[in-house]
Amino acid sequence: MLLLHLNKNKSIPLFQQVIDQVKELINQGSLKAGDRLPSSRKLAADCGVNRTTIFKAYEELWAMGYLESRQGSYSTVRKPAQFTKDIDTENISSISWILDINPSINKEYILKADVPIKKLKGSINFRPLSPDPGLMPTEDFRKSLNHILHNEKANVLNYGDAQGYEPLRKYIAKHQQMHQIHTSVNEILITNGTQNGLDLILRLYCTKETNIAIGSPSYNSAIHLIASHTDSITEIPILDTGLDLDFFEEEAKKQSIKMLYTMPNFQNPTGITTSQKHRERLLAICEKHHIIILEDGFEEEMKYFDKAVLPLKSIDRNQIVIYLGTFSKILFPGLRVGWICAHKQCIQQLTRLKELTEITGNLLSQAAVFSFCDSGLYNLHKKRIHKVYKRRMSLAIKAMKEYFPSWVEYTKPMGGYTLWVFFYNTSITELEIITQLEKVGVLITPGSNFYYQSTSEINFRISIAHADEDEILVGIRKIANVLNSIKS
Amino acid sequence: MLLLHLNKNKSIPLFQQVIDQVKELINQGSLKAGDRLPSSRKLAADCGVNRTTIFKAYEELWAMGYLESRQGSYSTVRKPAQFTKDIDTENISSISWILDINPSINKEYILKADVPIKKLKGSINFRPLSPDPGLMPTEDFRKSLNHILHNEKANVLNYGDAQGYEPLRKYIAKHQQMHQIHTSVNEILITNGTQNGLDLILRLYCTKETNIAIGSPSYNSAIHLIASHTDSITEIPILDTGLDLDFFEEEAKKQSIKMLYTMPNFQNPTGITTSQKHRERLLAICEKHHIIILEDGFEEEMKYFDKAVLPLKSIDRNQIVIYLGTFSKILFPGLRVGWICAHKQCIQQLTRLKELTEITGNLLSQAAVFSFCDSGLYNLHKKRIHKVYKRRMSLAIKAMKEYFPSWVEYTKPMGGYTLWVFFYNTSITELEIITQLEKVGVLITPGSNFYYQSTSEINFRISIAHADEDEILVGIRKIANVLNSIKS
Repeated sequence: MLLLHLNKNKSIPLFQQVIDQVKELINQGSLKAGDRLPSSRKLAADCGVNRTTIFKAYEELWAMGYLESRQGSYSTVRKPAQFTKDIDTENISSISWILDINPSINKEYILKADVPIKKLKGSINFRPLSPDPGLMPTEDFRKSLNHILHNEKANVLNYGDAQGYEPLRKYIAKHQQMHQIHTSVNEILITNGTQNGLDLILRLYCTKETNIAIGSPSYNSAIHLIASHTDSITEIPILDTGLDLDFFEEEAKKQSIKMLYTMPNFQNPTGITTSQKHRERLLAICEKHHIIILEDGFEEEMKYFDKAVLPLKSIDRNQIVIYLGTFSKILFPGLRVGWICAHKQCIQQLTRLKELTEITGNLLSQAAVFSFCDSGLYNLHKKRIHKVYKRRMSLAIKAMKEYFPSWVEYTKPMGGYTLWVFFYNTSITELEIITQLEKVGVLITPGSNFYYQSTSEINFRISIAHADEDEILVGIRKIANVLNSIKS
Repeated sequence: MLLLHLNKNKSIPLFQQVIDQVKELINQGSLKAGDRLPSSRKLAADCGVNRTTIFKAYEELWAMGYLESRQGSYSTVRKPAQFTKDIDTENISSISWILDINPSINKEYILKADVPIKKLKGSINFRPLSPDPGLMPTEDFRKSLNHILHNEKANVLNYGDAQGYEPLRKYIAKHQQMHQIHTSVNEILITNGTQNGLDLILRLYCTKETNIAIGSPSYNSAIHLIASHTDSITEIPILDTGLDLDFFEEEAKKQSIKMLYTMPNFQNPTGITTSQKHRERLLAICEKHHIIILEDGFEEEMKYFDKAVLPLKSIDRNQIVIYLGTFSKILFPGLRVGWICAHKQCIQQLTRLKELTEITGNLLSQAAVFSFCDSGLYNLHKKRIHKVYKRRMSLAIKAMKEYFPSWVEYTKPMGGYTLWVFFYNTSITELEIITQLEKVGVLITPGSNFYYQSTSEINFRISIAHADEDEILVGIRKIANVLNSIKS
């Protein structure tokens, strides 16, 4: 006799309970191939449920391949497919899943095991470069999602425009005017965050031989992605004023650099913002040498101090700048909504590539972000978090000034989330510093992550994104203590 | 005097209204560079609002670069950045955005203009291969979204696991057991739909010289994507039993085929499902010749008639099958949630590539799909739409039998959304048929879309996904009339 335990008060429908329990009996071996199941009439009587409930369940189980069933006959348990039982997840495959990888891929960037990040409980975490989860406007965003689903229904759940939800593109085009970037919806492609945007650009315009210039140090994930696309990377030192333009100009004369990846505002990792003059000279060099600029404006709107400096894209008279924007650093990284703003022809080709490789982006997220922005909530939220992060950044700079030994240098960012601490010292290694900091409960990001080649400097990145003011004060004091304990 | 129209009853905060209106005045030229704005005190009095409102607005406008402001002095309109006004979206760029494309990319698949799809109002649309928007469980899904946001909050809006939301991977691993695929969470990678999954696999394992076998005809978007990755494609004819295995085996002996892309269930476009025996022989051939199988199970659960046939992955004793699954054909395509199920090593490398190129997938969508599935709504929804599509498919087959001329052949799919109509006739071209059908208000997908090379057959695809029973009956009669008018 088949023993099922059906509960009419459960939210799971009765027929689904029957399915689940019969499947479980088959999977655990209590019911074996060939075993006959009671008739639907009998089982219904035994369980005290309607016969159609059992009938529906049997039908579904048959459709799933669990039961054999012939017209007018009893249902029996189906013979499991051959070999199924022998498959072990550790089984050796007859394909070499690693050796078979496309040899033109820089395997070290694919195969590289991630350094496991220790997340010691109770530690002060200066690592994450994403908005503080405690400040995320989750509830307001939930309302925007409901609003857009209520109004648009299936429209935002079906295949959509590969270029991205048009109202969002319109909003971005309009919003960018505040940064003096004047573009149309046709010059904007919505991407799954900046990384996806950068990848599309590199796929389209870069071969293994393409020379790409990057700042040194620079955003680690961008370095890895660029290095997976090309073997030819030119590192340009980052001075306290930004990219070393004399060095860059010399390199541009010497070799054929095709692209420059740069972050003019609050550069990751250093936090450095370049001046308007610096931007104009950079643009002039790139114009002269036909170098495409990939301008990563990841924190464009996170300026706390001093006047706004306008993006390179706003003075891009020759249309050589591809601008990368994102909602990840102000709203939610998990939504993966960013954009590329570039010459219409460039956007057209990138859109085709996007369509070819993904058909369409995540329409619901794009529509919800639009709804959030359009209702004015984005600007309000930005204002609110500005205040918090501005206080955090001020405090961090002040605390460094007060507690750090004089031989340690650090940047004083005008916005964003990150500060850069650096010094020259041969008596200690990066690993030793990190270990000592971890011992006192402070997590920072090692500077070596941000270089393509190595550096003679010892340095690390501090992010104030996830640390509140108390933690910043205590954390920087602790760092200062560790630094003070090193003989300079 | 500055004239602003502030409305205290609007949902937009007053300071935001001030910002918007001043920006508008600057953008339209009513306020020019150097113009002095009234003091915040005066403007507040003029507008009848609190002074801090104006102060906040001025501060924001300054931060946006619209105003110059010095301590204790009046605010003036800032000089727009140089050149801004000259930028025209049609401007010729100094970069050749098309010529500069990576020469190793098969440009024809990037540059190809999409054939504009005429969507004549009132037409019967047999084109779309996506769930009927009218049957989408939008409201239930909205509840799932709210449920997951309520429970998980910022957790599902931050960066997450590049491999995909773990509870969803667990659900998929468990759910696949009903198809006798026994895997663990480590053998599953969540992708942005099948296209993204296929792209990741091709990027990792395919070079320009890699020989890839595909069915002929086959899913057009897969053909385009594969052709953008390799120059070496082997087309295997599709017979009424599925891939021509004799032909395939001969090809496998003659040349080194590395991968086979196949859809054993309700093949797109033909709707053909292969038998268990066919699958076993196909697997044996691929095992012998070390051919990786890309099994696209895009409509695995959309079987209406006959017994369930188990996927190749369920009998994959040597782990040579990479299985591609998706929620796009049962739930929502716009969410872009699909998955790859393969050997652990393969999944590890694909995950690294996913992380490198996108950091992380869309966590919110993944979590919402999990919530929808986990609550039992997915299975219920599937049952509900099964009934509808089963009736539509039965009706389509019946109507073809009744009305089509005897010289026209068509498939009789056991599930899914598509049927394939084909014949040999030299008196008419594909374009003529399509044009005639459009004239009588019927939209179908031309068969030539589904071939890498051309075919001597005339054929087209009919999808019942978006057409209700009345439309199917009327539409197929209309097609029959057009076909009957052709001299065979």
